[in-house]
Amino acid sequence: MDIKLLKKVKTGKPMVLNIANSITQNDVANGIKAIGGEPLMTNYDEEIESIVKVADAVCVNIGTMNQEQNKLSLKMLKQAKKYHKPSVLDPVGVGIVPERLAVVKRILAKVTPDIIRGNASEIASLIDISSDSKGLDSVDEIARACAEEYNCIVILTGAIDTIAMEDKISHVSNGSKIFTVRVGTGDMLSAIIAAFIAESKGNYYEAAKMACLVFSLSGELVMKETPNVGPSAFFSRLLDQLYTVNVEDIKRWGKYDE
Amino acid sequence: MDIKLLKKVKTGKPMVLNIANSITQNDVANGIKAIGGEPLMTNYDEEIESIVKVADAVCVNIGTMNQEQNKLSLKMLKQAKKYHKPSVLDPVGVGIVPERLAVVKRILAKVTPDIIRGNASEIASLIDISSDSKGLDSVDEIARACAEEYNCIVILTGAIDTIAMEDKISHVSNGSKIFTVRVGTGDMLSAIIAAFIAESKGNYYEAAKMACLVFSLSGELVMKETPNVGPSAFFSRLLDQLYTVNVEDIKRWGKYDE
Amino acid sequence: MDIKLLKKVKTGKPMVLNIANSITQNDVANGIKAIGGEPLMTNYDEEIESIVKVADAVCVNIGTMNQEQNKLSLKMLKQAKKYHKPSVLDPVGVGIVPERLAVVKRILAKVTPDIIRGNASEIASLIDISSDSKGLDSVDEIARACAEEYNCIVILTGAIDTIAMEDKISHVSNGSKIFTVRVGTGDMLSAIIAAFIAESKGNYYEAAKMACLVFSLSGELVMKETPNVGPSAFFSRLLDQLYTVNVEDIKRWGKYDE
Repeated sequence: MDIKLLKKVKTGKPMVLNIANSITQNDVANGIKAIGGEPLMTNYDEEIESIVKVADAVCVNIGTMNQEQNKLSLKMLKQAKKYHKPSVLDPVGVGIVPERLAVVKRILAKVTPDIIRGNASEIASLIDISSDSKGLDSVDEIARACAEEYNCIVILTGAIDTIAMEDKISHVSNGSKIFTVRVGTGDMLSAIIAAFIAESKGNYYEAAKMACLVFSLSGELVMKETPNVGPSAFFSRLLDQLYTVNVEDIKRWGKYDE
Repeated sequence: MDIKLLKKVKTGKPMVLNIANSITQNDVANGIKAIGGEPLMTNYDEEIESIVKVADAVCVNIGTMNQEQNKLSLKMLKQAKKYHKPSVLDPVGVGIVPERLAVVKRILAKVTPDIIRGNASEIASLIDISSDSKGLDSVDEIARACAEEYNCIVILTGAIDTIAMEDKISHVSNGSKIFTVRVGTGDMLSAIIAAFIAESKGNYYEAAKMACLVFSLSGELVMKETPNVGPSAFFSRLLDQLYTVNVEDIKRWGKYDE
Repeated sequence: MDIKLLKKVKTGKPMVLNIANSITQNDVANGIKAIGGEPLMTNYDEEIESIVKVADAVCVNIGTMNQEQNKLSLKMLKQAKKYHKPSVLDPVGVGIVPERLAVVKRILAKVTPDIIRGNASEIASLIDISSDSKGLDSVDEIARACAEEYNCIVILTGAIDTIAMEDKISHVSNGSKIFTVRVGTGDMLSAIIAAFIAESKGNYYEAAKMACLVFSLSGELVMKETPNVGPSAFFSRLLDQLYTVNVEDIKRWGKYDE
């Protein structure tokens, strides 16, 4: 694993362009800042092409969709392809809202992002199974099947993060339960993945793994230092930990498949 | 008062669906998480029906309205009736902006939420008086008149919270002045009321009272512990207090009409 | 310099109406609260005139523009003129996105705000030079040229803040590098400038200078007290420092041209 990629992200100031969901966009922007990148956001059709050109990576989060934004999401992913910018798609809520799933499938029929990141319910729904279905008996199989179906990297996050592509699979097992008591942590991770792939020189799979590791370990380190912290203080400390986390922390505390 | 309802909210994971105002939607979502619920948000016409179906309660906040959102607000309250989900309406700013008042009155002419929550100026404007009018000489009368006019529970919040319906009125007197130096506390309370009525098995009046008590007492406990805290630190601690507040705290410190 | 203006802002409760960018509007609203004002926000065409009438100053931030909001931004600045409310324009991102620059120039061709606040790249682009152009050899010249071009006060913020108008220029040199690791600090400053000019009785130039001084010094005081604080904790403390900062702090620590 290329642990030094963390240094590149921290010094390279990758510009990450987001169509964010409106609930957590502030958290996402500050997460990108904390890890060393520069956030860009837009909902304006006329500026998308210009702003994709200056970006180093693109992250599309469909958490607060509407007709107009659905068009922009598709357009931004297409522009990312056109200008060879790596892209992440976060299909928020497709596991519980059929209309969202339909929108995301229409997007995926027209353009393939480099990475899809979601929770078990979201990833499972993209391959038309329920996440508690008996047909596929493990998270690994769900992630792998989704990666095959859409021919991209799939990151299925949870207590353990699973990173899958065609012929590879690996896991990151740092983290903390408290992540689930706060909105926006998944959205933030998706944008941070975009920052890492922006600096990866094409090795998106290893970069995605590193991003998951840095993010989940940062939360774990906060809980190690302040075990009784509440979810709001945790979130503030998580951002500050992302700002200071370094290669030594990864070497010492990281738990992942080589 | 059914103090144990707090336990049910903390363990029941009620799903609270919001049309939120864009300024405070992150706070609202994290407030719902902190008290034990799961937030859902939408501004997408096509998914409203699906998402109301999976929700346990609905909260409509009109703080950042526009033409499209006004239609969605009405639709969501109607869908809530159709699927028998309890609902809260927060008429933000109707006391100072006549156009907002007109929008809310058009909504209320077509559908009645289970609860309306606002400050004195907002509640008074809904019954066409100014909150400093001499005609009605007390907050109690304003709240009661509004409850009669719209045939629902009315919660008028301020230094003392007043909960009124047809033939009942009661008060919660915990709280702290610092609530007013921070945006979003009222919006958050409205969503937390929705979480409580979701778990109330139909006893909305008692649930609304409990929600006001838990929320205002949580703020008071923060100020008791850290009296010199500034408004930003207060807000973060409020969220963390909502996460840990328990039945014993209510019994010991709660100030309310039985 | 009228240092006592700070007291007037803290006691006068100026109502600052914002078209905010969606990413940082919560921060902006809480910044206005912390300094003693009351935030108002709208994206609703039909209420703009009513809400401008009750406001004491107006701040238009174009950070998350779309077709509809561009119309509202122009309308709000025009209404501000009509009702003699002082106004601030924050041209977020015009230095890197040509389409944004075009929108802002169309607005400025039709109405002149009292103050424009931006960073070097933004202010330079408004006068069609790049901020690293050799043609104009200093930040002072860029600020002054922009002030002349648009016939208003121009505030160019950075490590040093430059306040320029037709025949005057001055500087504030408090601050901290950590401001740049957090989104929304510039947006917040623009709104706080609006709060100060609202209480200035027409002396916008001095009020703008005071606003920059209070804001940058508040950040500096946080770093003086907690030098190792991370960007998220910094931001929370900045808000709390804005809440407590007083005339004595300014006298003791302020660094500015008389």
